[in-house]
Amino acid sequence: MIIKIVVAGENQFTRLYQPDADEMLVGVDGGINYIIQMGLTADLGIGDFDSCNIEEVVMACSKVKVFPKEKEKSDLELAILEVKDLHHEKIVIYNGTGGRLDHFIAILNVLIKYSEANIEVVDEHNLMRIISQPTKLVKRDYKYFSLFALEEGTIISLQGFKYPLTNYHLAIHDNLCLSNELVEDGFLEVNNKKILVIESK
Amino acid sequence: MIIKIVVAGENQFTRLYQPDADEMLVGVDGGINYIIQMGLTADLGIGDFDSCNIEEVVMACSKVKVFPKEKEKSDLELAILEVKDLHHEKIVIYNGTGGRLDHFIAILNVLIKYSEANIEVVDEHNLMRIISQPTKLVKRDYKYFSLFALEEGTIISLQGFKYPLTNYHLAIHDNLCLSNELVEDGFLEVNNKKILVIESK
Repeated sequence: MIIKIVVAGENQFTRLYQPDADEMLVGVDGGINYIIQMGLTADLGIGDFDSCNIEEVVMACSKVKVFPKEKEKSDLELAILEVKDLHHEKIVIYNGTGGRLDHFIAILNVLIKYSEANIEVVDEHNLMRIISQPTKLVKRDYKYFSLFALEEGTIISLQGFKYPLTNYHLAIHDNLCLSNELVEDGFLEVNNKKILVIESK
Repeated sequence: MIIKIVVAGENQFTRLYQPDADEMLVGVDGGINYIIQMGLTADLGIGDFDSCNIEEVVMACSKVKVFPKEKEKSDLELAILEVKDLHHEKIVIYNGTGGRLDHFIAILNVLIKYSEANIEVVDEHNLMRIISQPTKLVKRDYKYFSLFALEEGTIISLQGFKYPLTNYHLAIHDNLCLSNELVEDGFLEVNNKKILVIESK
């Protein structure tokens, strides 16, 4: 199953959405409106819905969880907690980029915190995810491939890239792996440390 | 002096630019085109200019520094290195948000690496900067005020906020300080650790 989470923000979901045979649609707070706009039914609606018509939300969702506005965790994190233990291939977050940068940093933090749940953030230019294990990389419809360390002591090797690397110590905040390119299917080796991977057009 | 750095990317500079009495205009690579578009002269043009008309660039700049395309540092970092020791009040980066997320993360890394240079990233919704000292916060035209720790052992106190805090241990990747609000001029205390501060509309 692919779990698709639609958050409030600059809408790209309605342009990017393509149905999958086995998917779960989750609308987080105002993000539910884009699911409604597509004439789809959300399997789950979650949030405080303070800027939504709650009757419309209930109509558009198979299941709704309403949380108070003032809470310790963001609506997105509550959604991740709700779905992360369901059997799934990956979780994709839509509308998480653009607009408010603090929201984007908060989404990045959720991605890092729940990295074992295999979460991706997508928009029209980018696909962002966390990798912490040796991983085969398929050359796809993205030109650039950038990597950023998130933990101290990260050692990486890159094969199949324009600029390959062998046992490179990628420090936190090091931009050396910005705008690399896959020339063929490649391979990333990493010593069990979390790396932020961004493929972009 | 205010140093204004215009990078390539989704253009907001032409909408946000307002002249200051004492300013230095720096065009980084394709960013120079937006300075040209405004009919302004750049005090400095810097980059590999591989996607620019180099004669046009030379015409539009008081001074030009051309670097090879393949280099260890990004054009933006080279620009920061060029200006950071000039006497200045702050450095403002335009067009650093939107579009490619890897570029945004790379800019964030430059902000962190050269935090003593007092760099801001601005767009129409956000003002992003690093704070590591006790700082008075003026209530301005932004609704939300978010803080994210960048170093272990960060302890903060917030006064003048909707949700004040006293000696709170803000962990890296903790989203607790997302979407706080200044209710009046406020004060941020921090124990000499770098915090990412984002004010947004």
